Amino acid sequence: MNPEKIINQIEIIDSRIVELLNQRMEKIVIAKKFSEENGLAAGCGEVSDSVFHRAHSLLDDDFLKCIYEKIAGQSSAIGSRDLKIMAFQGEHGAYSEMASKTWNDKFVPIPCGEFSDVFSGVENGLYDYGIVPVENTLGGIVSEVNDLMIHTKLYVVGAVEIPISHCLLVYPGTDHREIREVYSHPQALAQCRRFIERNKLRPVNYFDTAGAAKMVAEKNKENVAAISSKLAAEIYNLEIIKESIEDYEVNRTRFLVLSRHENEGNGDKCSIVFSTAHKAGTLFNVLEKFASESINLTRIESIPSQMGNYAFFLDFMGASDDEKIKRVLEEVKRIVDDFRMIGCYEERKVK
Amino acid sequence: MNPEKIINQIEIIDSRIVELLNQRMEKIVIAKKFSEENGLAAGCGEVSDSVFHRAHSLLDDDFLKCIYEKIAGQSSAIGSRDLKIMAFQGEHGAYSEMASKTWNDKFVPIPCGEFSDVFSGVENGLYDYGIVPVENTLGGIVSEVNDLMIHTKLYVVGAVEIPISHCLLVYPGTDHREIREVYSHPQALAQCRRFIERNKLRPVNYFDTAGAAKMVAEKNKENVAAISSKLAAEIYNLEIIKESIEDYEVNRTRFLVLSRHENEGNGDKCSIVFSTAHKAGTLFNVLEKFASESINLTRIESIPSQMGNYAFFLDFMGASDDEKIKRVLEEVKRIVDDFRMIGCYEERKVK
Repeated sequence: MNPEKIINQIEIIDSRIVELLNQRMEKIVIAKKFSEENGLAAGCGEVSDSVFHRAHSLLDDDFLKCIYEKIAGQSSAIGSRDLKIMAFQGEHGAYSEMASKTWNDKFVPIPCGEFSDVFSGVENGLYDYGIVPVENTLGGIVSEVNDLMIHTKLYVVGAVEIPISHCLLVYPGTDHREIREVYSHPQALAQCRRFIERNKLRPVNYFDTAGAAKMVAEKNKENVAAISSKLAAEIYNLEIIKESIEDYEVNRTRFLVLSRHENEGNGDKCSIVFSTAHKAGTLFNVLEKFASESINLTRIESIPSQMGNYAFFLDFMGASDDEKIKRVLEEVKRIVDDFRMIGCYEERKVK
Repeated sequence: MNPEKIINQIEIIDSRIVELLNQRMEKIVIAKKFSEENGLAAGCGEVSDSVFHRAHSLLDDDFLKCIYEKIAGQSSAIGSRDLKIMAFQGEHGAYSEMASKTWNDKFVPIPCGEFSDVFSGVENGLYDYGIVPVENTLGGIVSEVNDLMIHTKLYVVGAVEIPISHCLLVYPGTDHREIREVYSHPQALAQCRRFIERNKLRPVNYFDTAGAAKMVAEKNKENVAAISSKLAAEIYNLEIIKESIEDYEVNRTRFLVLSRHENEGNGDKCSIVFSTAHKAGTLFNVLEKFASESINLTRIESIPSQMGNYAFFLDFMGASDDEKIKRVLEEVKRIVDDFRMIGCYEERKVK
């Protein structure tokens, strides 16, 4: 224990306070979805009595009262704003949150435990949008998301592709020579395998990249590091030992933005899903229709659905109100089963 | 997810914010021990830049700035006070903390991970006092503490005996019929065995009673409960389902207050420690000295120390400056080895 270490600990405490303040505001935004008319002032008021008391000896009454008033003020300010929620899977600092901010930094990114929570939350109106990763240049498709895409009635209203740059994060003040273990999601660890070997670190699987960063910050572990995003370093107040530690240069993930409502703006890309009878040549026939009109396919993915059946995802360039595309889709509908237009949307790529 | 549940979640977040604010102030009190002259304004100032930024989208700059100023203000107020630290083992809400508050509620109770941290922290001047449990009416002696007592050079400057009343705590709003598991320290679970059986709960060992309460609050687990103190319920904002759930009525723990310096006030009780040669009759001879002067022994404890040797703790009524006691101790010193007067102090019993 030394003064510098204490200053570090205070920094970590402060960043957790900020994190919790943000979490409180997130709850306010979500609660508002339930009670548009009531507002939340009443709910916040009740909290004050039971919590902001003096169970702790070092907090003066005046101080607590003042802090509470500020928090209640910010809560009601947040409650009065018309905010749109974008749900993502993972902890704050996840790459999905970076994608959300890239797509629209006015949206409020709200973390969910599972991909299925993102889908069901958007479906039942708790969240306005969801953002989910569908494919990564190194890891391939995110099969869980693709499975959920088959059964959902949600629309794709946007797509965004961002570079994934992994950072090695540690508790502030850690000597990099002392690091022995590195925590992260198995895929992130795999993408940094050579870096990890070169530095003689022991990789430890963790459910989530941002969760690993949070854990390193909270446990105050000194000989461990996390592989996570730059955003996670900011949020959990960790020190970045090294940026871009992935073995391959081209590491990009494509995310889809989901909504209950169809995209109202312009689109330059379309996604469809359909299944085909188990009959030779059906898929070929579909592809032929696109080829004959010179429509550029950008993704095709087959997902096993029911016994012996396959669902197909097709992405292609163009707008859904384009005559050529309307024509092709009419023909495709005739030869496939369960055709669904998932969306026509704008796709953004960030360098 | 429903509005009531969200209000509960907000309450838990608020109580964690309050907990972290208190933790920050504790760090300030500890840091002050290192740098009496510098103060801590500089350290806190640095924190502001790196942490109170806008990594989170729902916190306005003005709000964060204001919160930070209030926290910095309270920190410097705490930093300017002449506070005495009383270290205890466990999390906030531990019975040791209740004992600390009972002994002197002006002291700042600071949690430590291990009993050895309490001893070493007081020894090296980081903490002014330590408070440790030595014996419980149901569980017997706390052997780890007694072992540490043999080797330390600290003095006992007080003793306090408090009733231990276990409470069944749950996340607010939990239906008591839904509780399946109950977490607590093995000793607390043992003391409530019949209550646990009667209610068909599954006991789960946890390292600490207050830690179990904290876990229930943080994990937001709805079918679990913790057995812990009333203070823990207050601190972690949990609901008390039932108080005094222990099977036996007389459940009391005695705590010792430790310091680097001898007690300066009056005392009515003394503690000594010594070892004896491995020779029949030595202990008998010691006890005879006390008996001959009609000095009332209140505790005798033998602790195996080195190979084949025993250390003995003796507590007895009386003040160390009493002529009769001085006389006995002089005689005892002549027949034992490693005699040490641990302290002459006031003992308080709380009903």
